Amino acid sequence: MKRSHRLVDLTYYLLQNPQKLIPLTYFAEKYDSAKSSISEDLTIVKTTLEEKSYGTLVTVAGASGGVKYIPIANINESKELLNEMKQLLENSERLLPGGYLYISDLLGDPRYVNSIGRIMSSAFIGKEIDCVMTVATKGIPIAYAVASNLNKPVIIVKRDSELTEGSTVNVNYISGSTKRIQTMVLSKRALAPKTKVLIIDDFMKAGGTINGMITLLEEFGATVAGIGVFIESEEKEDTLINEYISLLKLKNVDIKHKCISIDSGNYINAFDKASEDLVKE
Amino acid sequence: MKRSHRLVDLTYYLLQNPQKLIPLTYFAEKYDSAKSSISEDLTIVKTTLEEKSYGTLVTVAGASGGVKYIPIANINESKELLNEMKQLLENSERLLPGGYLYISDLLGDPRYVNSIGRIMSSAFIGKEIDCVMTVATKGIPIAYAVASNLNKPVIIVKRDSELTEGSTVNVNYISGSTKRIQTMVLSKRALAPKTKVLIIDDFMKAGGTINGMITLLEEFGATVAGIGVFIESEEKEDTLINEYISLLKLKNVDIKHKCISIDSGNYINAFDKASEDLVKE
Repeated sequence: MKRSHRLVDLTYYLLQNPQKLIPLTYFAEKYDSAKSSISEDLTIVKTTLEEKSYGTLVTVAGASGGVKYIPIANINESKELLNEMKQLLENSERLLPGGYLYISDLLGDPRYVNSIGRIMSSAFIGKEIDCVMTVATKGIPIAYAVASNLNKPVIIVKRDSELTEGSTVNVNYISGSTKRIQTMVLSKRALAPKTKVLIIDDFMKAGGTINGMITLLEEFGATVAGIGVFIESEEKEDTLINEYISLLKLKNVDIKHKCISIDSGNYINAFDKASEDLVKE
Repeated sequence: MKRSHRLVDLTYYLLQNPQKLIPLTYFAEKYDSAKSSISEDLTIVKTTLEEKSYGTLVTVAGASGGVKYIPIANINESKELLNEMKQLLENSERLLPGGYLYISDLLGDPRYVNSIGRIMSSAFIGKEIDCVMTVATKGIPIAYAVASNLNKPVIIVKRDSELTEGSTVNVNYISGSTKRIQTMVLSKRALAPKTKVLIIDDFMKAGGTINGMITLLEEFGATVAGIGVFIESEEKEDTLINEYISLLKLKNVDIKHKCISIDSGNYINAFDKASEDLVKE
């Protein structure tokens, strides 16, 4: 197989298998090529990915070594995409009774969802994560998009018991914003003790739902590896959650004047702050 | 930019943008290269994708033309993956009270879900599809995986009204297997009339849920473009649905002997039948 064709195939294979350690012998046998040629190919792939800020390839030496593709979101592209979403979300037609926002169309677009997943997963690179958890239903697509980039399984917490979940552990919690009792249900076999769990959700106001998931993790003897939300709301009196990543922040919903204002979340702000500091120095 | 680097970047870009028509000028400007060089690059990408049965590139001529990546599942890899899932699903520990199967772990694995999406979307290539619809919750990851490959939006039907959906259209239907009245809810703004909808679900027994979605589509003046389910059950007395694609078929659940038997669905069987016929000729 020629180098040009190998490069296409290598790129294809690595993109389909993010975060998976692939022995060099796998490629050497697949392409019937010397390991040295494969190493050269991988250098070309790595350089291109890094130049374009698409991620990187990590090489692990030794007998059980190999190469691993780590997808990373390009920060400029991420900011552009989030800005596009911000503008979409600020459309006053999204305003629903009670000051809620209609966002199902945006979360129904695989392009946006995959971008959100890519950006969110970049925020947790280097953290030890065994699985991604979310609660039904709007967090589900985001959780899968994050999990695909991290190559980890997804666990979905339900609001009601379902026959197809078998025995469950149920947790009652108080919704931070509505102050009502709600229930969360997770199949007993879904989670092993000591699992490190990344909690993902679409929206966080007072943090009651996420707090419910943390309580659920405690019941299973699992731990929180991180928390990521697509949109956080600024209107939180007493936040239950301190450490989390957000991509967008809902600053204000003015029902009377039909005006929605959205800002960057703490993840992008941290980037901007860092680059400002760099300019000052 | 050198050809080797261009090939990596081209492959990356095309894979991230399936089913999207990209003008050649986009790449020519991106790489500061002549259109003729880009055409040669694209031929290399196309040949490699087709040789490996990963899909194809379609070129559209003319001023509004360009190139489009169509992902297609490799049939042999698909059969291997489905066989792997079949064996996982036949594990008697999945048996739940009432003869239900626990499949949330399998549907929580992005690798399996992305494969299911790839295979399922291949079954509908060439069909006119505007969006993908499913009902909460287990169908959601499959629907997104299918939609990602088709580059179409996802619409999620709920079981209950939610404040974040605004005004809704509700449909009552009889579950084919439990014979109980159930409700389906879809936001009024989720679906425009005349939309061609691909219905996707994880499991189909008598077809009541899918029939409910069809009724819902009629309420919106939308039409069915196709139906795809991950697992169909053979135990159906009077099926409500005639034309559909299934990847696996649950043949029998013997609760007494704790035995589950699963076969290929009609999609794979159709492939096998076609190759048998080819051998006979």
